[in-house]
Amino acid sequence: MATSWPISLNIFNGAETIAKRVKEMTGGRFTIKTYAGGELTPPLQVLDAVRQGKVQCGHTASYYYIGKSLALVFASSVPFGLSAQQQNAWLYNGGGLEMIREIYREQFNIINFPAGNTGTQMGGWFKREVKSVADLKGLKMRIPGLGGQVMSRLGVNIQVLPASEIYLSLERGAIDAAEWVGPYDDEKLGLNRAAPFFYYPSWWEPGPTLDMLVNRNEWENLPKEYQEIFRTATYEANITLLSQYDTLNGEALARLVAGGTKLVAYSQEIMEAAQKATLEIFEENAIKDAQFKQIYKQWKEFRDKIYRWNRVNELSFANFTTKKLSL
Amino acid sequence: MATSWPISLNIFNGAETIAKRVKEMTGGRFTIKTYAGGELTPPLQVLDAVRQGKVQCGHTASYYYIGKSLALVFASSVPFGLSAQQQNAWLYNGGGLEMIREIYREQFNIINFPAGNTGTQMGGWFKREVKSVADLKGLKMRIPGLGGQVMSRLGVNIQVLPASEIYLSLERGAIDAAEWVGPYDDEKLGLNRAAPFFYYPSWWEPGPTLDMLVNRNEWENLPKEYQEIFRTATYEANITLLSQYDTLNGEALARLVAGGTKLVAYSQEIMEAAQKATLEIFEENAIKDAQFKQIYKQWKEFRDKIYRWNRVNELSFANFTTKKLSL
Repeated sequence: MATSWPISLNIFNGAETIAKRVKEMTGGRFTIKTYAGGELTPPLQVLDAVRQGKVQCGHTASYYYIGKSLALVFASSVPFGLSAQQQNAWLYNGGGLEMIREIYREQFNIINFPAGNTGTQMGGWFKREVKSVADLKGLKMRIPGLGGQVMSRLGVNIQVLPASEIYLSLERGAIDAAEWVGPYDDEKLGLNRAAPFFYYPSWWEPGPTLDMLVNRNEWENLPKEYQEIFRTATYEANITLLSQYDTLNGEALARLVAGGTKLVAYSQEIMEAAQKATLEIFEENAIKDAQFKQIYKQWKEFRDKIYRWNRVNELSFANFTTKKLSL
Repeated sequence: MATSWPISLNIFNGAETIAKRVKEMTGGRFTIKTYAGGELTPPLQVLDAVRQGKVQCGHTASYYYIGKSLALVFASSVPFGLSAQQQNAWLYNGGGLEMIREIYREQFNIINFPAGNTGTQMGGWFKREVKSVADLKGLKMRIPGLGGQVMSRLGVNIQVLPASEIYLSLERGAIDAAEWVGPYDDEKLGLNRAAPFFYYPSWWEPGPTLDMLVNRNEWENLPKEYQEIFRTATYEANITLLSQYDTLNGEALARLVAGGTKLVAYSQEIMEAAQKATLEIFEENAIKDAQFKQIYKQWKEFRDKIYRWNRVNELSFANFTTKKLSL
């Protein structure tokens, strides 16, 4: 199994859980060896390696590959989209997974499985404060996917770098800002030592799903029981990675703030400009790409329904309980 | 497998998923038959049936059994506690499951597995509006667990009834109010035809976990691989039941509102009085019960940390995106 991740980060646990559980469920007969990003294939080229059969499977994020198919962004996370829990509902019960699977099957000879989620990410590390859209202009920032396209439209020079290269680039000033995941992994990468301002929320990654990609020829060679065992292990990876992140991030956030990191909310002006640019990009993508258009339409209806439901139940509750909390 | 649920409700899928997936992962060699609540044992006595070995396992909610051990409430959900996602983080990574497992092992010869979550529930159906604590006094309401104890302290006459008996009791006026789960299951039970006012949120069940209880003698008789297969299936049930609920509830909520149901938020006065009564009960329970005290202390620290984290990431995002939505 190839991955896109350094072994030291929590995100690698999504891959590890699957390998470990598959082995345990088969009494050691079905074993999968996990590799760090770069060992078998460059971190951002896992899809190609799986498609070409260079590796049997890979743990990665589908939105790294929107250059190949725009609609793959929905498999991970889209700006102003769904939380982790909502994304699971869309994928597992809202018709999302079927549509994403069709793309992977038809264009890449791959079967994909949701296999981890980071939860709503943070909005990145900045060397200096950005209060307005004007402050963003000309900044060099590491940010991939559609979020990067939106930032680009707001005047940011965007860069896509794998995790392993972010710290040095930020520290040396080759870039002015960088986003990775959230408190725990970012602290591991040392980003808090390279920039003082930690923005929230990541309006571009409200609940990114990580995907396990399997070459379909390899998949079809597996005994049916091993397929089912592998499939169930991806559900376990999906739920436990998020639990790990929520626990570790809570602790890391407290450490970072105690250590001098300044938490800053994106201004209403930036949030609104980003939301507007996102809608424009959605509409343009829908004109360019029929698959994007089809999924976007279905996804939007689902989003509005689940937003309304979660506003009534979870949000009204969370706003009450956290109102009086000090930071 | 005994359960506490009518087959017609979505909640039954938590049990079904485990039986189905275990069978598929073992090529049909390990089969589990699921039964509706009442078939093998009364719905609210699943724990006893499993403990006594009358059934090998059962799908139920641990807080039905706080009469046997006060601390079991933490396995499900406590008033003003954790959301589904936060509850998973506490159980899987915050030390929660180990503590709950100890109670089940020592006192009941049972091993438990989180195996479903309904998400933040709704605050129940009322025949007439309740705007203040004074309006609650003397009402007869179906509400179990600690939530029931809090309501009792606010002057409500509480009742615990299984799902199958709620509709008739409410419709005939034997009770004035009733809570079950949320839009989808409540609509299935017909509660919207028995009362017009649908309150939110369920401040007493912000993210209840359902548990799969297994008799430890039966568990130890299982081959190791079947144990691991069963264990992983419970993770799948946990994540998919929530996805099903979030999807189905979104659709059901829209239908109910279109059909005339009146959505009403609990008043700030009632929420604050309930929160105050909850804290009193927590403190009293901690004096009465050493296990409750130990878990409560650990749980409270976890709660504060994850509340702070989720307020920064998920909540700030969700409040922005849902602000402009019409209901």
